[in-house]
Amino acid sequence: MTKAEDQVRRVLADLTEAIRDKDATALIALLADDEVTFDLAPPLRMEPHRTHDPAPLEEWFGTWQGPIVSEPRDLEVACGGNIAYAFGLQHMTGTKKTGEAVDLWFRATACLRNEDGRWCITHMHNSVPFAMDGSDTALLDLKP
Amino acid sequence: MTKAEDQVRRVLADLTEAIRDKDATALIALLADDEVTFDLAPPLRMEPHRTHDPAPLEEWFGTWQGPIVSEPRDLEVACGGNIAYAFGLQHMTGTKKTGEAVDLWFRATACLRNEDGRWCITHMHNSVPFAMDGSDTALLDLKP
Repeated sequence: MTKAEDQVRRVLADLTEAIRDKDATALIALLADDEVTFDLAPPLRMEPHRTHDPAPLEEWFGTWQGPIVSEPRDLEVACGGNIAYAFGLQHMTGTKKTGEAVDLWFRATACLRNEDGRWCITHMHNSVPFAMDGSDTALLDLKP
Repeated sequence: MTKAEDQVRRVLADLTEAIRDKDATALIALLADDEVTFDLAPPLRMEPHRTHDPAPLEEWFGTWQGPIVSEPRDLEVACGGNIAYAFGLQHMTGTKKTGEAVDLWFRATACLRNEDGRWCITHMHNSVPFAMDGSDTALLDLKP
């Protein structure tokens, strides 16, 4: 593993930790100023003013009891010059305040840029596929 | 625009053209040997043996009357060393053989690697978000 790849994997581990600890400030600190997210929930495209706003993150964090576990599986990382990308499946588990147990596999792609020696996230894309049987149902129960 | 960024944009324009022309061979020729796709339809993760198989692509192409138009909007491209990434919204329009008119906005992220002077796609991630109102409906009618 190159030094750059090791650094990128640490940033993504910090992201996992910020989500687990429900720490909006720590999560936002990992993002580049122009970070754009394509997330599981709408909108289609979250612009930087939204991805850097702690309020919607804290609202989402507040719907969970205890930690939010989101573990990567078979994460592939590539680095070149001052950019990097990573992709793999994520397994999210935990309990909502409603008592609902969450056990969700989703796909995650992250893009990063090195700014003055520090890797920051420029783009995240999280999703599940949907059924093309006419029901247009998001497929939340797929397993790898 | 750098030479690398120009080359990456041309590869993505070739992808758009291969989809429009329903040309599975041209599309697969743009992919790296290890290309992994996270697509609108299941599975969660399409492995390289599947992304390089023309049969499922041709089956999907065969469900359309005339061309499949998939135009990028505000495509952001970053290149560093021998890798690159690009992301933006795509607007897909056309008519299915059932007569259904398709007018879909979705999110697309692409990752690329330069192999011996040629840029090839190592990863594609295409998705729509889903409603978190308990219906788990894929949101196919969002507009930017």
